[in-house]
Amino acid sequence: MGVTPLTPCLLVDVDRLEANIAAMAELARNRELALRPHAKTHKCLEIARLQVSSGAVGLTVATVSEAEVFAAAGFEDLFLGYPVYASRGLGPRLRDLAERTMLTIGVDSVESARALAAQLAGSRDRVRMLVEVDSGQHRTGVVPQKTGPLAAEVAHLGLAVDGVFTFPGHSYSPATRRTAADDEAVALATAAASLRAHGIEARVVSGGSTPSAGWSEAETLTEMRPGVYVFGDAQQWELGTIGAAGIALTCLATVVSHAGGNVVLDSGSKALGADRAAWASGHGRLVDHPDARIHQLSEHHAVVTWPDHDPRPPLGTRLRVAPNHACNAVNLADRFVVVRNGLPVDEWAVAARGANV
Amino acid sequence: MGVTPLTPCLLVDVDRLEANIAAMAELARNRELALRPHAKTHKCLEIARLQVSSGAVGLTVATVSEAEVFAAAGFEDLFLGYPVYASRGLGPRLRDLAERTMLTIGVDSVESARALAAQLAGSRDRVRMLVEVDSGQHRTGVVPQKTGPLAAEVAHLGLAVDGVFTFPGHSYSPATRRTAADDEAVALATAAASLRAHGIEARVVSGGSTPSAGWSEAETLTEMRPGVYVFGDAQQWELGTIGAAGIALTCLATVVSHAGGNVVLDSGSKALGADRAAWASGHGRLVDHPDARIHQLSEHHAVVTWPDHDPRPPLGTRLRVAPNHACNAVNLADRFVVVRNGLPVDEWAVAARGANV
Repeated sequence: MGVTPLTPCLLVDVDRLEANIAAMAELARNRELALRPHAKTHKCLEIARLQVSSGAVGLTVATVSEAEVFAAAGFEDLFLGYPVYASRGLGPRLRDLAERTMLTIGVDSVESARALAAQLAGSRDRVRMLVEVDSGQHRTGVVPQKTGPLAAEVAHLGLAVDGVFTFPGHSYSPATRRTAADDEAVALATAAASLRAHGIEARVVSGGSTPSAGWSEAETLTEMRPGVYVFGDAQQWELGTIGAAGIALTCLATVVSHAGGNVVLDSGSKALGADRAAWASGHGRLVDHPDARIHQLSEHHAVVTWPDHDPRPPLGTRLRVAPNHACNAVNLADRFVVVRNGLPVDEWAVAARGANV
Repeated sequence: MGVTPLTPCLLVDVDRLEANIAAMAELARNRELALRPHAKTHKCLEIARLQVSSGAVGLTVATVSEAEVFAAAGFEDLFLGYPVYASRGLGPRLRDLAERTMLTIGVDSVESARALAAQLAGSRDRVRMLVEVDSGQHRTGVVPQKTGPLAAEVAHLGLAVDGVFTFPGHSYSPATRRTAADDEAVALATAAASLRAHGIEARVVSGGSTPSAGWSEAETLTEMRPGVYVFGDAQQWELGTIGAAGIALTCLATVVSHAGGNVVLDSGSKALGADRAAWASGHGRLVDHPDARIHQLSEHHAVVTWPDHDPRPPLGTRLRVAPNHACNAVNLADRFVVVRNGLPVDEWAVAARGANV
């Protein structure tokens, strides 16, 4: 290392990364919660190891292929937090994972549980299930009151139900960040009670997202699963969960044009991702120029409105852009350039890049 | 092949692909224009070969690393349609490309031309330049009247100026699709005249995008560079450049949940890309269910409002989703499953996946 990397490329500031990991580990410890960070954010073995060595009990993953990447690297306690539909093609892979790891899988319908039980066959006693609860995002999951009846049906198929989980995704909005944490608390308490009413103890009550992590006060909660906190991103900055100085993941970009009086960077949507929430101020943020705004993004261009009070950087200048959504930016890259004090010191592979099946 | 692929994965319907390639080749022939399709859309050697064998004069690429992938596969006439800023790290790679191919590079500032001339050093006579014109997208490029003065400065640096190019990117909107084609015609004619006034003949006058391809009537035009036409996508469908039946690229997805009465697919933004124009009706379109709407998209979930008149597909059903923007979906995949009559017959690598530097 030491060579200036070509742009656009993703930089991980390892000091900030470690600070973010330590802060969330402390928050979990103080609240006496298990921390099971979502590995879909970083897809990186080195970062997962830092999380586990700071006290994470295991990892959350989104897909079977992500589970395989982390299992192959020795991570043995994995929660596949997704209502997997076990097609025949997934059967051998799920059985193999079940034999090699402590595998927990999400479920929100008896149809999915039935397909999973069939594909797991003799390995079904190796897997534990968490019933997914919709706490207000209205994506997947059952309403809290129906958790118990579904859990009973799932258990009847020979699959052990360990508890419930939710993702309060509506925390990703300034308007509902706080209420999402409250919604989560109510939904999980109701769901755990519904399980108990059907004779199943919710040993695991799992919630959490980065925006709601500091606020969730569900008394029944046993575990949290934030993902983005390791890096932070422009969305988290604008939601107020992190300051610009704490963001550990940036895309290094080069000024390639001054057309129209703007600053045009080579960090387009093929490097930053195209995520843009309705409330976001632009298509990513320049961490060292907080008043600059990326007002147009195409595949290889980020067009920046430059603030009048800030000298316009010459062509060839390199600037750091925080993507709006770290998870999707990471999935576009094959590796991170690891920096300490601004200097490249290592490279880490995005080991599960593209492992989205 | 013949095995049902796991989902989400990208399918290329090769009959539709060939029909789309043939139709654009015929349009270019009828208008006596050179066709130089943009390879950033597919990043695929097999597809580029089909384009060239149907009459394309060469390829357009977006980055140095895309140029390298196609050059290594024997494509020798490449236009790097981007205002490349030649950092020191790019120098050896640009010189190598210049020696191995007929390389043309875009430029919109004398500063970039100066950096390029310095890095190309003794290879600068191997490269030709096209001056980028802003025809209304307001991304990169100079105003048409300034093309001549810039071309003269570029030529003074020992770089041969072959003509002008533009991308009328504002054609990607129902409101300005037609006027963008008109803007392109006026801008290119003005730019070519500006070059001539400075003693430089615009041998190449290059424009075009998929939405404007059928409308552009620039008399001075010599070349068109559409990209998305090979596949079509949900944006092109909604812009009216292609019908659902003509779309050659889809993401095969599985129904994983019926939560909330919706149909939830496993094709999230890590498979489809997160592009969503303000005028798009959703986050991609189901080609066989035109009244369905993807109203929520996260990394591994597409939540679909299902039409009342259409029976709701059971869990495990596989459906085909046209991404909003083909180019960004392709950049997420390592390979295409090639289908003919709905059956997998081959796999093609996305050879330049991630080659975005």
